[in-house]
Amino acid sequence: MAKRKPTIHEVAHLAQVGIGTVSRVLNNHPSVRPETRNRVLSAMAHLGYSPNPHARRVAGGRSYTVSVILPVISTEFYSRLLEGIEQVLADERYEIALFPIFSPQRLRRYLENRSLAYQTDGLLVASQGLAHLLPHQKFPTERPVVLVDAHSPHYDSAYLDNRLGGRMAAQHLAQFPGSFFAIEMQEELDRVMGNTVGKERVVGFREGLQALGYDLPPTHIFPTRFSAEGGRLALQHFMRLAPPPYNIFAGADLLALGVLEEAERQGLRVGWEVRLLGFDGHPWTEARGLSTLAQPIEDMGAAAARLLMERIRGYCEGPRTLRFEPTLVVRASTQPPDNP
Amino acid sequence: MAKRKPTIHEVAHLAQVGIGTVSRVLNNHPSVRPETRNRVLSAMAHLGYSPNPHARRVAGGRSYTVSVILPVISTEFYSRLLEGIEQVLADERYEIALFPIFSPQRLRRYLENRSLAYQTDGLLVASQGLAHLLPHQKFPTERPVVLVDAHSPHYDSAYLDNRLGGRMAAQHLAQFPGSFFAIEMQEELDRVMGNTVGKERVVGFREGLQALGYDLPPTHIFPTRFSAEGGRLALQHFMRLAPPPYNIFAGADLLALGVLEEAERQGLRVGWEVRLLGFDGHPWTEARGLSTLAQPIEDMGAAAARLLMERIRGYCEGPRTLRFEPTLVVRASTQPPDNP
Repeated sequence: MAKRKPTIHEVAHLAQVGIGTVSRVLNNHPSVRPETRNRVLSAMAHLGYSPNPHARRVAGGRSYTVSVILPVISTEFYSRLLEGIEQVLADERYEIALFPIFSPQRLRRYLENRSLAYQTDGLLVASQGLAHLLPHQKFPTERPVVLVDAHSPHYDSAYLDNRLGGRMAAQHLAQFPGSFFAIEMQEELDRVMGNTVGKERVVGFREGLQALGYDLPPTHIFPTRFSAEGGRLALQHFMRLAPPPYNIFAGADLLALGVLEEAERQGLRVGWEVRLLGFDGHPWTEARGLSTLAQPIEDMGAAAARLLMERIRGYCEGPRTLRFEPTLVVRASTQPPDNP
Repeated sequence: MAKRKPTIHEVAHLAQVGIGTVSRVLNNHPSVRPETRNRVLSAMAHLGYSPNPHARRVAGGRSYTVSVILPVISTEFYSRLLEGIEQVLADERYEIALFPIFSPQRLRRYLENRSLAYQTDGLLVASQGLAHLLPHQKFPTERPVVLVDAHSPHYDSAYLDNRLGGRMAAQHLAQFPGSFFAIEMQEELDRVMGNTVGKERVVGFREGLQALGYDLPPTHIFPTRFSAEGGRLALQHFMRLAPPPYNIFAGADLLALGVLEEAERQGLRVGWEVRLLGFDGHPWTEARGLSTLAQPIEDMGAAAARLLMERIRGYCEGPRTLRFEPTLVVRASTQPPDNP
């Protein structure tokens, strides 16, 4: 504890650079070559160097914090998205401040620059709807903004092509006999904000089926809150509409989980009477034998965080768009191991 | 959209008060009587009045934001805790900014007042360890601080008596024949921060057993990360130590879930060969027939938020402590419906 703190001079000496370079590394200045940067960071780690925080703050006029605005924080999707963001920001020694919107009432703050979210060095916004609610889709700030799981012509974006995902679902399920059904996740907050993720997946599914000559009547689309219970209600609804087999595209793994539970309760064999495809690719789907469209959620979060860090360091070319695609993972729920 | 915005004068007129009173309501001033406050808020709602945000901010020198510092955000416990906090703060028209610590590396910011968390009107800190790491257990800020799921002699606190919970577990499980076992949740971040929640539950369990004349040997305590997998490993470990029946106190419902899964895999009947008690009382435990010690998580969060709002409004007496107790919920995992 009584050990003297290492100085910036010692770091510079060990890394064989000037103290100006050490300072530039601390401030994430883009002019430092990666090899040099690594050498300086290694020297810091070796010596246990920690910069004078006050000096660092004043020098850059920065908070060294990034705001993440997101609808809610309690879902597996946002948890994984934050994991990806956190990996990048921890390396950059940036702090994360989370601003969950939670309810429509809180939206106004974000539209009006009343939020503390706009006081940080940059914003990651995980909400398609928020951008659309803003006049000219422009956030009320001059700080860098990057959209994640959302996109806009005005900002850097890292997003998943949900509509493509829906079309992939159609191609996979269209090989089976029986009727087609879709479960569309639809939260109150999404409706108010005009979030379209759930809708896009189902629109893509219908397009995909149509391209293959199949129909998806509106009554075969069950909109529901994002919960396992919603999946259970969906299957009950479908059972009132048609006899098995059912080919069901669940707009999210959690909805598919409810279908699995209800199928078991109803004595319907998954893979035969109920063919089921989820969306997300959460780790637990493997143990449940659930086919799903896997999103590279952590990668998307990390990519968005990197785009933002580049903006914070001064990158000022036009908006960049990173479009991610889901991967079809086929398991027992659409490919039973053997005949019944 | 072109409709003229209502003024503070119209609100005052409708509520039959002076504009000073409207202003005091907007600033959460403690001198306004509840009836008056409600009348003013109703008038605002009726007219669709929204205060000039800049004026509100400047007038009070406030951010109208509360910081919540917490270890992680992805667990059901923190999700429910935030729900309770959110209920109170939404009513108060306060925004929540979340600061997840995530990793030991981020801790330093919070110890040194480098964090944006200290720029808001007040802090809710959901981490026993953070307070203990601070010199004299004092946070580096003059703003109000309230601890939740943690306690300290220096701050208002709303916390659960985890040790009492452990003793309650002992009293419940001691009625059954067989050996006693405990699963202790232990994350790396907890170790670094000195968080004691997991340990307190097991200490209470051992105390409770000792008071009843039973022993809990150190080998019967299985420390593990907070995951269902941890519960599975725990049961495998206990099976190597002793034959059934096992009386297991799992320090968290998620750990108990792993025990349930592993018991099924091993062909051990829950309620007979494996008696199992969880901790948390999460909603899904009911469907799984899991006995558990239910925490009033949302209430604890709401109570802490109310304590903080009172401090923000100027309450300045000594620290207040709200100690919550868990409730024993007995289900099939310790009380099978009939004989095997």
